[in-house]
Amino acid sequence: MKSSPSATRAPIEYADASEEVRAVYDDIMATRKIDWVNNYWKVLAHHPPTLRRMWANSKEVMGPGALDALTKELIYIAVSVTNGCRYCIASHSAAARNKGLTPEQFSELVAIIGLANETNRHAVALDLNIDELFR
Amino acid sequence: MKSSPSATRAPIEYADASEEVRAVYDDIMATRKIDWVNNYWKVLAHHPPTLRRMWANSKEVMGPGALDALTKELIYIAVSVTNGCRYCIASHSAAARNKGLTPEQFSELVAIIGLANETNRHAVALDLNIDELFR
Amino acid sequence: MKSSPSATRAPIEYADASEEVRAVYDDIMATRKIDWVNNYWKVLAHHPPTLRRMWANSKEVMGPGALDALTKELIYIAVSVTNGCRYCIASHSAAARNKGLTPEQFSELVAIIGLANETNRHAVALDLNIDELFR
Amino acid sequence: MKSSPSATRAPIEYADASEEVRAVYDDIMATRKIDWVNNYWKVLAHHPPTLRRMWANSKEVMGPGALDALTKELIYIAVSVTNGCRYCIASHSAAARNKGLTPEQFSELVAIIGLANETNRHAVALDLNIDELFR
Amino acid sequence: MKSSPSATRAPIEYADASEEVRAVYDDIMATRKIDWVNNYWKVLAHHPPTLRRMWANSKEVMGPGALDALTKELIYIAVSVTNGCRYCIASHSAAARNKGLTPEQFSELVAIIGLANETNRHAVALDLNIDELFR
Amino acid sequence: MKSSPSATRAPIEYADASEEVRAVYDDIMATRKIDWVNNYWKVLAHHPPTLRRMWANSKEVMGPGALDALTKELIYIAVSVTNGCRYCIASHSAAARNKGLTPEQFSELVAIIGLANETNRHAVALDLNIDELFR
Repeated sequence: MKSSPSATRAPIEYADASEEVRAVYDDIMATRKIDWVNNYWKVLAHHPPTLRRMWANSKEVMGPGALDALTKELIYIAVSVTNGCRYCIASHSAAARNKGLTPEQFSELVAIIGLANETNRHAVALDLNIDELFR
Repeated sequence: MKSSPSATRAPIEYADASEEVRAVYDDIMATRKIDWVNNYWKVLAHHPPTLRRMWANSKEVMGPGALDALTKELIYIAVSVTNGCRYCIASHSAAARNKGLTPEQFSELVAIIGLANETNRHAVALDLNIDELFR
Repeated sequence: MKSSPSATRAPIEYADASEEVRAVYDDIMATRKIDWVNNYWKVLAHHPPTLRRMWANSKEVMGPGALDALTKELIYIAVSVTNGCRYCIASHSAAARNKGLTPEQFSELVAIIGLANETNRHAVALDLNIDELFR
Repeated sequence: MKSSPSATRAPIEYADASEEVRAVYDDIMATRKIDWVNNYWKVLAHHPPTLRRMWANSKEVMGPGALDALTKELIYIAVSVTNGCRYCIASHSAAARNKGLTPEQFSELVAIIGLANETNRHAVALDLNIDELFR
Repeated sequence: MKSSPSATRAPIEYADASEEVRAVYDDIMATRKIDWVNNYWKVLAHHPPTLRRMWANSKEVMGPGALDALTKELIYIAVSVTNGCRYCIASHSAAARNKGLTPEQFSELVAIIGLANETNRHAVALDLNIDELFR
Repeated sequence: MKSSPSATRAPIEYADASEEVRAVYDDIMATRKIDWVNNYWKVLAHHPPTLRRMWANSKEVMGPGALDALTKELIYIAVSVTNGCRYCIASHSAAARNKGLTPEQFSELVAIIGLANETNRHAVALDLNIDELFR
């Protein structure tokens, strides 16, 4: 069994990117006020429609709204930890720290994620009926 | 195959509870400033050490701290949705609403949970390397 | 959008089953020393090769071995709770009770499942290195 | 705490394998028309009944049928990504490429997996009722 | 604890929908060549930006491309089963049947999903190294 | 985007630990009759209330009870494999081996975990009704 084409996709750097891809990279950096693009986007760039689509989604969902920017990152991390996605935990923890997450808040976040995972399984194991007042 | 003892555990109501269990119920109601106890605790009550232990955990983790009470509930919901726990979604959504969650915020919460689940899988599928700046 | 053929598969009862399917049902009942077959097998019966294959797997994996029959059921339940499979929790909890599971043991099982789910997420959130002595 | 016996199981190479194990390896190579065996089987080989059983399962389920060979691999990858199994993603992506998966198809596969994971959580978060026409 | 506002979101019917929402509903029906809209969209409609965004995503990802329409549905179902999303399984199984899924193909789909979930856990339990030829 | 403070938490060694943290470490070592503390606790130590709380939980749940010590570890491993937590699999597999787990038993454990994950998905895919005798 010969593995071809190559199994992994190398990140596409700005210098090597098409106009279409560069336009997205530029918008990512401008929106985030940073001067680099992380691997998620640089690997998605192998399929420009997905790169464009996901950036549009991310910009809309994670942009200014009714929830503040740090809270949005905490929700993202809670999902990423529960799914066991190391990349996403690393990238969104960095984002959260840059938005002001303190070590104490991070410790509480981890504790809540753990507790919720525990009680989720209790509720399922015990096949709990939903209380009338919660409906 | 005869299923015995009975497969499900009926909630233990206050009137039928032991002193030990009532003490926990009383503390739950006093802490939450409400006059009822939800099914999670009333079913855990079949095993008083677990009831006591889990209430102590919940009180400590979800009590006042570096994260505000509503943010804590949003983290809880994000985990519960990702795990597919209907009971926990219902109970913590009710708690969040009582702590001020607006419909607009709820909509954003659901959108973020969805997006994070999507990008988590992208990151895994593409076997992304963690960027140096995230380490 | 018309949903056809019918969306769900009705259990195939013994009276309506082919010879091939009846042979599996007979072996299930003989092996388990019971006089009925549960829905899992009766729905799998729509695809006899899968019915036959899964019963052979189940018989081999859950049959006598180095782990006792009750322990095997507890492992099964732990997985089923973590995956949130209500059917499997119900069926294997019944099996466990018939193999002697006590209410106290069930309570401990639920507590361990919950704790493991909690610490699993802690370990991932904190990106722990595996200790040398565990390798 | 001394970790013994050794924590990990080294792959059992053909030269070191028993007759029973070699017979399975031979069938794997003949069926797949390749001249090597991947680690999954070489580690399962520590327990020959499981090696034999899993190969029989794999051969039956992934062999010729009503779905074509490439489609079967895409389904396998979709599950493996959702479960976060790096080994299985790598092995079945290689298999898919050898069965003709194009880079464009791979990109679409990843996009669908992501979208499904997203909408799955939306459906759970919103506790959707199943439409009559879907039943 | 009073649960307000109401815990669940009723589907928004066409007759009660805003112009913005109706435009999406119209496009869903036109694209799918059907005369109704399923609950997923009717509940998302409580937050029109999410309705619009998710429909645009769905239309792009599930529309014509390098993978055929039925294969796309099978991938969707594989994810939905692995995540335990009943709504998504029901809706995409209906879609798959309308795109020609046969009962035999459905049985094979279920078998592959099951097998992949099984071997995913084996690979993780045994901490397999990825073979060089898969890299 | 500058990642600060540092992204990962180094284990806190005994020599560098506060009195409060040392007291927990001492109890861990005394309870387990070993002379070292594993990384889970040494990283949790950055937040002493969580360290204290989790150790109390672990000691109570995993301590002597109605289930024997080895069975408790097998349940823990079953959850950890299903969640894909490499650290927890390594640490609890080591614990299980020290409590007498044989290679044969480990192989059976892995086989049961795999089978349960497979049938869990079958049950969900087929939307099985729970048999009356299981209720």
